[in-house]
Amino acid sequence: MTDLQQMGREAKAASRKLAVLSTDQKNEALQAIASELEEQTQVILEVNQQDLEDARAKGASEAILDRLALNEERVQALADDTRRLTDLPDPVGKVMEERTLPNGMQLSRRRIPIGVLGVIYEARPNVTIDISTLCLKSGNAAILRGGSETRRSNMALVQVLQNALQQAGLPETSFQYIKDPDRKLVTELLKLDEYVDMIVPRGGAGLHRLCKEQSTIPVITGGIGICHIFVDDSADLERAVDIIENAKVQRPSVCNALDTVLVHQSVAERVLPEVALRLNQNGVELHADERAFPILNGMNRGLAVLPAGAEDFDTEWLALKLGIKVVDSVEEAIDHIQQHSTEHSDSILTGDQDHADQFINAINSAAVYVNASTRFTDGSEFGLGAEVAVSTQKLHARGPMGLEELTTYKWVGVGDGHIRE
Amino acid sequence: MTDLQQMGREAKAASRKLAVLSTDQKNEALQAIASELEEQTQVILEVNQQDLEDARAKGASEAILDRLALNEERVQALADDTRRLTDLPDPVGKVMEERTLPNGMQLSRRRIPIGVLGVIYEARPNVTIDISTLCLKSGNAAILRGGSETRRSNMALVQVLQNALQQAGLPETSFQYIKDPDRKLVTELLKLDEYVDMIVPRGGAGLHRLCKEQSTIPVITGGIGICHIFVDDSADLERAVDIIENAKVQRPSVCNALDTVLVHQSVAERVLPEVALRLNQNGVELHADERAFPILNGMNRGLAVLPAGAEDFDTEWLALKLGIKVVDSVEEAIDHIQQHSTEHSDSILTGDQDHADQFINAINSAAVYVNASTRFTDGSEFGLGAEVAVSTQKLHARGPMGLEELTTYKWVGVGDGHIRE
Repeated sequence: MTDLQQMGREAKAASRKLAVLSTDQKNEALQAIASELEEQTQVILEVNQQDLEDARAKGASEAILDRLALNEERVQALADDTRRLTDLPDPVGKVMEERTLPNGMQLSRRRIPIGVLGVIYEARPNVTIDISTLCLKSGNAAILRGGSETRRSNMALVQVLQNALQQAGLPETSFQYIKDPDRKLVTELLKLDEYVDMIVPRGGAGLHRLCKEQSTIPVITGGIGICHIFVDDSADLERAVDIIENAKVQRPSVCNALDTVLVHQSVAERVLPEVALRLNQNGVELHADERAFPILNGMNRGLAVLPAGAEDFDTEWLALKLGIKVVDSVEEAIDHIQQHSTEHSDSILTGDQDHADQFINAINSAAVYVNASTRFTDGSEFGLGAEVAVSTQKLHARGPMGLEELTTYKWVGVGDGHIRE
Repeated sequence: MTDLQQMGREAKAASRKLAVLSTDQKNEALQAIASELEEQTQVILEVNQQDLEDARAKGASEAILDRLALNEERVQALADDTRRLTDLPDPVGKVMEERTLPNGMQLSRRRIPIGVLGVIYEARPNVTIDISTLCLKSGNAAILRGGSETRRSNMALVQVLQNALQQAGLPETSFQYIKDPDRKLVTELLKLDEYVDMIVPRGGAGLHRLCKEQSTIPVITGGIGICHIFVDDSADLERAVDIIENAKVQRPSVCNALDTVLVHQSVAERVLPEVALRLNQNGVELHADERAFPILNGMNRGLAVLPAGAEDFDTEWLALKLGIKVVDSVEEAIDHIQQHSTEHSDSILTGDQDHADQFINAINSAAVYVNASTRFTDGSEFGLGAEVAVSTQKLHARGPMGLEELTTYKWVGVGDGHIRE
């Protein structure tokens, strides 16, 4: 029987040890994890094969099987990513600001680990290593709960982690895995606020909603992106077609992929046919509003164009589909985005600096772009190294969360017998 | 009937206007609030008098009546504090970091308002003005819910705010007050996640627990301080007595007041009698553990000393009471604090730099002190200006939350037709 209270106590105790490790100690443990991954590759692939066979027998789609599957290259990539973390700066202990108060007390703000993370994720077994190694480098412990379809793979990866921790002389309880598939344990984890400091859900909207509703622990919500590109009247229309194609087609299943194109009415008749032709070559189905539909439908070239339905502008497609709407002005575009965006990634394509500024100021999504694809919202693209999640909420961190976003801070006041007047 | 959905929609719309105001526009509105407070002083005091009479008739304690009461000086202080906010730097729009990515895109992180706050508070009517003015300066809207015993006073203060907003040409819906005393509205506010971005409870442990359990919106928990001072063997014992007196006695009802003194065994017999005499002069009742009790009880000078009960080291006294415990080492002190602290404010008194460093590294409370009173954890002491709350949680902000802590950030990427490879 899983005793989450016990796991929580042990995770908290481990987190106190991780919090005071030197950078070298953490890097040595990361090296040990990388080596162990390489040594255990065959074991990992064998159990992953069993997970895959079970999933296939249960009728899992090819997309899910692909997310689930490990192979030698993928395990090697995990080891390489783990080694790469040793090169990134250690955020813990960094002094964020420092000053002397009028009374002479030295006051500073210093970065510390958050403590214990509760991570709830779905099919991808690589998340087990990605998140644990980021946690280790930032001095955090974690309790992990992966999807049942990858249970064997995850257990083998957790064994790798724990072997490496033992070799490095660190507590094996730093990374614990909830093996019992009982769903009640997820709810219990969400209420383990005595020991767990932050919940990170990695999955769909349903999982995020569950966490928000049930958790008594702060939750990092995010990863849901209804992303927009607005083509202004002064946009470079040729580049606009390239950017829209990139944002929609390059990897349609991810959260920073494009969902809706808004087009200024004065350029709609020029740019929409070009967009439609380019996207149709890529197999994209267009859902056009009542102003865009006649323009596209009139082309009469067998384009896949449908009239947009009521929910289409509130849908994260995660597929080769795209909403298209004609607007009268940058203000109308901003208004539409404020109403429909999930505040993930939104972009304006324009040659007008005032419109760019207006858009940047009014749109408060985690990432706002000018003349660029929405696909850049990503930890490695932003130069943060790997990422634990992409946050679209307002508190703590927004956008890609790397090592620094896995820390918080404390105030340190050094006095000389100071008392308050 | 209160329509919280409607209030939420209006607050969100108002927050979008506040978010793009210039610093001058916000300062003008703050000046208008200060003037309006001065002009409406008599009206405010009259309704406050009615609140006070009702509270007295219901048998409210003198402490509660004092928190509830306004007078000319207190209203003037609110106006002065409001004017003082105009001198503080505007955090909105501040560029936190900026760099050029290898692909040439300009990437920056900019401070933006959080959006809409839900504030739930108890007796003090000044919170209505304190929080609203901090929100205004940081570009946030708020939905306020004060205690029923100050309803008339709060409504008069909200009227002041709304008059001033109207004069300044800003939406009156920036600060809305839930008048209906129905407690169900609190629960409903806690689930208004479509419109409200952050919940700030200002009250006791019960209110914080309710918010954590019920809210689907991130909650700033805090304000509960079980605070410690550890007197190390190398401490300056004379100063130690002054610091302990200051931390316990200066204002015992607040969250950064001292709750437990830990004393190294090698100095216990010297320092504890001095501490006891000084605190007894101030009417403090001592709750001593089994090693401290014989030392104090043996003094036989009519000291108020009790053997510590099972719960005493997990109690925030908020009164002239103090737990005392003898420990063998800095490690034991750290261990006790990690087990019993609420991670608010903890201090070590020591002459040993290694012990100071060990304490600073191991204790991850919001504020950690060396040779200083715990009473310094405060927005104005830290030079942040006023504060909305003192956070003891791990995410977003820790310790005193001033203007900057009422902001979040967005990433802004400016490209030149950039697409992701």
